[in-house]
Amino acid sequence: MSEFTVVTYDWVPEPPRGYVRDVRICWALEEAGLPYRVETTPFRDRGPEHFAHQPFGQVPWLTDGEISVFESGACLLYLGEKSAKLLPTDTKARVEAVEWLIAGLNSMEMVTVPWSIHQFSNDRQGAAWERTDGWLTTRLTHLEKVIGKRDWLAGSFSIADILMADLLRLVDRFDGLKDFPTTKAYVARATARPALIKARDEQIARFKAADAAA
Amino acid sequence: MSEFTVVTYDWVPEPPRGYVRDVRICWALEEAGLPYRVETTPFRDRGPEHFAHQPFGQVPWLTDGEISVFESGACLLYLGEKSAKLLPTDTKARVEAVEWLIAGLNSMEMVTVPWSIHQFSNDRQGAAWERTDGWLTTRLTHLEKVIGKRDWLAGSFSIADILMADLLRLVDRFDGLKDFPTTKAYVARATARPALIKARDEQIARFKAADAAA
Repeated sequence: MSEFTVVTYDWVPEPPRGYVRDVRICWALEEAGLPYRVETTPFRDRGPEHFAHQPFGQVPWLTDGEISVFESGACLLYLGEKSAKLLPTDTKARVEAVEWLIAGLNSMEMVTVPWSIHQFSNDRQGAAWERTDGWLTTRLTHLEKVIGKRDWLAGSFSIADILMADLLRLVDRFDGLKDFPTTKAYVARATARPALIKARDEQIARFKAADAAA
Repeated sequence: MSEFTVVTYDWVPEPPRGYVRDVRICWALEEAGLPYRVETTPFRDRGPEHFAHQPFGQVPWLTDGEISVFESGACLLYLGEKSAKLLPTDTKARVEAVEWLIAGLNSMEMVTVPWSIHQFSNDRQGAAWERTDGWLTTRLTHLEKVIGKRDWLAGSFSIADILMADLLRLVDRFDGLKDFPTTKAYVARATARPALIKARDEQIARFKAADAAA
């Protein structure tokens, strides 16, 4: 039996709480019904052991016995191999789930993360902001058409939806989906799943407990 | 026998030539010695058939009989399943190749693509530029340490190196690697491979031929 451990920070400031990427991994594990525990690594002092597991000093990473995986997208692909609830076994559906996972990580987050940083930084003017905001509108316009044709990106719920809904809920937080009702409904549908609610609420509770301990 | 087709634009303007992402797929196919052909789709008029294969209206996509895959990262993963020259079969090395591929697509390109757009747009001032440029320096500082310890990201050459070297050569084009000699040497090592040279030079020749035909 696999023994999965998800490693995240021991504490983070208020703004990213509920959005730190360990949510993606815990969400997937909850969907698949795979047992796991959460361990923490210091947010403030990131030592050699942290960089040995995650060379950019980020979180999360996932361990499964001797195997250690970093990058939330790679962790999701790894878990996909462990459960058909996360990644379909049929070739065509599997290709769809993988291409949409990668579309989330590359075509979407390449835009949504810089866009969110503009929002967090309260920097919404100038050429770079206009370019990023326009780019997001283009991407969402295309995505809206796709999502209008299906409940989930690869037909049935998969790691592609965990990734896509998670990155879109950060856009939604800054009201970036207001002109995209189909996409907004998709995010609402995904985030109503008990597995996400549990993963997110437990993350928020964990960081709050760390405040109290400090 | 698989019949791979790589689809790219019929023409692009001068600046991106040699860097359009079909290079990644052709590079991988050349490394693996898998037969393929290149087909084109209009750059100027992107119709319903284009969006049916690539919902964001980008290129490339890859077909293998009835299977059609979009996102260069997903195409590389798909081809990785076809050849151990692209993706090792040993579990630990395989996890490393996949996590580094995803690190390229997400942790690196999320920074390098906006950074390159600032460069292409000649927009190198203001808060967004400073933030992006500083973010790139941080990422490259971490990557430099990793690359100093190994020739290739997963031990032997893999799809992770195709992705990482391809995104870094765009940074190198704007001299963004000048303070990172180990990373610069890695890019030189990867781009000296005959498979990349053939894929890149054929792309440049194809777009030049389209100029002449216009």
